[in-house]
Amino acid sequence: MTYTAPLTEQRFALETAGRLAELAALPKFAAMDDDLVDAILTESGKFAAEVFAPLNWKGDREGAKLENGVVTLPEGFRDAYGQYVEAGWGSLGGDPEYGGQGLPFALATACQEQLTSANMAFSLCPMLTLGAIEALTAHASEDLKQTYLTKLVSGEWTGTMNLTEPQAGSDVGALRTTAEQAADGTWRIKGQKIYITWGEHDVADNIVHLVLARTAGAPAGTKGISLFVVPKYLPAEDGGFTVRNDLRCVGLEEKLGIHASPTCTMSFGDKGECVGFIVGEEMAGMRAMFTMMNHARVNVGLQGPAICERAYQAALAYAKERVQSAKLGGPDRDPVAIVEHADVRRNLMTMKAITEATRALVYANAAAVDMAHAQKDADARTAAQGRADLLTPITKGYATDMGVEVASIGVQVHGGMGFVEETGAAQHYRDIRIAPIYEGTNGIQAMDLVGRKLNVAGGQHWRGLLAEMRADIASLPATGDFAAMKVPLSDIADAVAAAANWLVEPGRDPNDVAAGAQPFLRLFGIAIGGWLLAGQAREAQSRLALGKGDAGFLRAKVVTARFFAEQVVPQGAALLGPVMRGRDTLFAISADAL
Amino acid sequence: MTYTAPLTEQRFALETAGRLAELAALPKFAAMDDDLVDAILTESGKFAAEVFAPLNWKGDREGAKLENGVVTLPEGFRDAYGQYVEAGWGSLGGDPEYGGQGLPFALATACQEQLTSANMAFSLCPMLTLGAIEALTAHASEDLKQTYLTKLVSGEWTGTMNLTEPQAGSDVGALRTTAEQAADGTWRIKGQKIYITWGEHDVADNIVHLVLARTAGAPAGTKGISLFVVPKYLPAEDGGFTVRNDLRCVGLEEKLGIHASPTCTMSFGDKGECVGFIVGEEMAGMRAMFTMMNHARVNVGLQGPAICERAYQAALAYAKERVQSAKLGGPDRDPVAIVEHADVRRNLMTMKAITEATRALVYANAAAVDMAHAQKDADARTAAQGRADLLTPITKGYATDMGVEVASIGVQVHGGMGFVEETGAAQHYRDIRIAPIYEGTNGIQAMDLVGRKLNVAGGQHWRGLLAEMRADIASLPATGDFAAMKVPLSDIADAVAAAANWLVEPGRDPNDVAAGAQPFLRLFGIAIGGWLLAGQAREAQSRLALGKGDAGFLRAKVVTARFFAEQVVPQGAALLGPVMRGRDTLFAISADAL
Repeated sequence: MTYTAPLTEQRFALETAGRLAELAALPKFAAMDDDLVDAILTESGKFAAEVFAPLNWKGDREGAKLENGVVTLPEGFRDAYGQYVEAGWGSLGGDPEYGGQGLPFALATACQEQLTSANMAFSLCPMLTLGAIEALTAHASEDLKQTYLTKLVSGEWTGTMNLTEPQAGSDVGALRTTAEQAADGTWRIKGQKIYITWGEHDVADNIVHLVLARTAGAPAGTKGISLFVVPKYLPAEDGGFTVRNDLRCVGLEEKLGIHASPTCTMSFGDKGECVGFIVGEEMAGMRAMFTMMNHARVNVGLQGPAICERAYQAALAYAKERVQSAKLGGPDRDPVAIVEHADVRRNLMTMKAITEATRALVYANAAAVDMAHAQKDADARTAAQGRADLLTPITKGYATDMGVEVASIGVQVHGGMGFVEETGAAQHYRDIRIAPIYEGTNGIQAMDLVGRKLNVAGGQHWRGLLAEMRADIASLPATGDFAAMKVPLSDIADAVAAAANWLVEPGRDPNDVAAGAQPFLRLFGIAIGGWLLAGQAREAQSRLALGKGDAGFLRAKVVTARFFAEQVVPQGAALLGPVMRGRDTLFAISADAL
Repeated sequence: MTYTAPLTEQRFALETAGRLAELAALPKFAAMDDDLVDAILTESGKFAAEVFAPLNWKGDREGAKLENGVVTLPEGFRDAYGQYVEAGWGSLGGDPEYGGQGLPFALATACQEQLTSANMAFSLCPMLTLGAIEALTAHASEDLKQTYLTKLVSGEWTGTMNLTEPQAGSDVGALRTTAEQAADGTWRIKGQKIYITWGEHDVADNIVHLVLARTAGAPAGTKGISLFVVPKYLPAEDGGFTVRNDLRCVGLEEKLGIHASPTCTMSFGDKGECVGFIVGEEMAGMRAMFTMMNHARVNVGLQGPAICERAYQAALAYAKERVQSAKLGGPDRDPVAIVEHADVRRNLMTMKAITEATRALVYANAAAVDMAHAQKDADARTAAQGRADLLTPITKGYATDMGVEVASIGVQVHGGMGFVEETGAAQHYRDIRIAPIYEGTNGIQAMDLVGRKLNVAGGQHWRGLLAEMRADIASLPATGDFAAMKVPLSDIADAVAAAANWLVEPGRDPNDVAAGAQPFLRLFGIAIGGWLLAGQAREAQSRLALGKGDAGFLRAKVVTARFFAEQVVPQGAALLGPVMRGRDTLFAISADAL
């Protein structure tokens, strides 16, 4: 149950899908050079492997505990988190004005991947903090930033997102938590929130809750929602943060997985004294929350390849070690390691190919976010933002679905051992199952993709991406491994085009569009995965020709891209028909007769 | 967390895929009439729902416990098992000569499905007993049958299968447990077995272990293996079974799921006094074990639709109850039950269609087993046995994979609630994960299908099935829902034919065959599912035309078959290419560079 950061692959994925050289050329990231990137990836990978990973199994077994409103993590978590803060891992992507290191989100994402592979439950704590930082950076007053942002960027304090209420899950607009302004201009928050990740814990000294609430007289739905900063500890007269705010954790969920991530029911203002500070304007809460959510969605998508990677490492190690049965067809009847059996090898190659495809997708998404912030040219920024927004639901939806699938294959490769908890494979299968659910279920992601993102700016973002994809595929060499990739990749690009054009056709009933949302997201995700891997294979081939880099790794990359194109891509292309069937069959049986 | 047996659907599936009328026409099943079938399904469904289902969650939470070699099930299990024996549910398919009711396996399978849906962990106890009955019926001496079979058929005693040892999992031939003949003609067994399901427990008075072991001087591999009956309690002088045999449970696995099914490490002969009785001839153990395993594989396959059904019932109930967001495109902005949203409906229809397709597959397989035993004509028996043997790996492999997939969709439909253990959806996702592993991993099933079953009798069994499938598809009406099914079903039948012909081509390297095994099994499973559902739809249409039966159910069946053909079948047909890629890409990366 060890973890080793896949440094060569991460670095290569950053250089290709993550467009590292282009990012480094931007003034904002001028401080970043090759050595710095290497040092960060290496040290962060070491930290993840040595500090977070050893707590993963322990965290699963012991879980977070609630007693009298106090949530306690297993021994070792507070200390590990302290080391995380001390080493500055939380501040990589933060704004230098508030103590951050100003590095690209893409690079921070690679580091966050390592933490997630090492200990998914624990990694949610910094992940939620990053979301809070994003929202405050974009929307909070200078005063709030000075008070809260620096501590969040350093990681000394952690952040949370408080959206969900029992009656308001996917439909955030249905929330009922209220905010009333006090004479001093601050607000009094009252209500209950559920499923609050790391809502209460003992690993940091303060918790900065970002809470969505409705102000007096605000309209129904999402338009009437405002965002508040609600710290666990308020400032005292002496300047310290020692005054306990009127909020508490009243329950912890007993969950399938991520047991060391406390999922809290939070009660705000039981005594009517819960103090909050508004972020931005009244009733502008949803915009701020979307800032936070978009960031979080990329990071949740990242949990896909992160758990794929961990599950793959475990399955591969087992397959190399487990000796069972002789190789087929050979003269030698001695049993061999199961990695030599074709059907086990198929499972491993499937895991590897999907891991690398989803990693490429996530890094590409993160790089687009960086481009949207850091490029000088306004049109370029808009184009990059369009790309980032288009990719976000695909990253979140496709990569997390694949996380579940690959973790399941990982269990399978272990045979009977996979079902025994102590082996560790089962924990990944349990942990990752939340990823398709939180931060907007994958159904919601699919609806966002087809109902909103395909139609932004007259569809220019998806058409632009598709044009780029097609040009790249057309220019692949017509020989060897690339020839084998070319046909399935062209086919799936055509399928994406046909499906997208069908979905955006004027006058199309929104329920027909919704009916095709899930297979469309899958289709598009596979197409992008295949395209990005083919691009990586091409770069690998060039480096091989130049004699640059690790030849074994580069050759494996070409094979992996081919495997994905031949084995996975056809299953994606087959979703074209399913996308375009419309709502009729779905609703032909009444709910009562289902 | 309730369960209701889907009686209308089960009855209909038995009548169509399960060929109930044909079975009833055979002399062996002359006692079976419509009323009896109804009475059995209804009462067994009631028993499952009222006695087994209420213990499912409790069993998961408390699990089986081991203390000083004694395994205790949670309160209520012993009593429930007593009721099961008393009602005679274990004896449905048993030989009347040993107290059985002599009913078809297909009907017994439908009842076992209900138990499995209600409480998968518990249902394994009778399931293993059925396997032991099967092996003893076919291979044991009359003496052993008289002593053990009657008690197993009644269910008073339970049975187990002892194959696996740490170094001998998929490779059964590597086992090391020994058997030495004593002066009295009985045998002394010595060795350790792992993963023994219900190997020790407190719900019945005796446990009849069937143990594979190697006799002195026996050759290596599977050829040297013999099968023994090794009871927990041996006969005493007074005729009772009160003498404790020298065997014990030395460990229980802590597992991902089926917590109420004790998975035991069994130690035989620690004192050199473990008495066993040989089943059949020395070194004929594998044949007997295959009898047991083939039976068990159908019943494990059955766990697929059984858990699909349970997961579907839970998801559907939640989707009807959970109100969230307004329906798209309508004027009404009030939130509706999520069952009215297209993407949720897609999830539910996917669950429903796969549940019904896999149920049809399992019943068809069970009916073929019955035909192989009960038909008068020897050629007909051979053909039926060929069909049963061909279907078995597909049933085991495809239906269990689908169980995992559908249970996962069930979690997803529940949103955040799905990840909370108390909801119950997560238990199904955990429980069913063992089904693709035990009784031969699904990789082993796929290898059995392509390496063995496709080549039996010159391929006549798969060619016969395919010819039947194609004739049925060709004769589907070319109008309405059937027209929509015809094209995808024809396409997938062509894909199966092309793939199978490629696999059986003379001179094909066995590693190329093995490389395509898994996608071929999936492809064939989907094709059979689509074909059987189309046949059901046709029968439903006929009954609708005649005004016979439940019109709502029958109409839903037609829609469900269409949904499967349009949405699932194209994903199966797309596996043709992946089947035929051969081993090269799989082995192009050396194990060290993976």
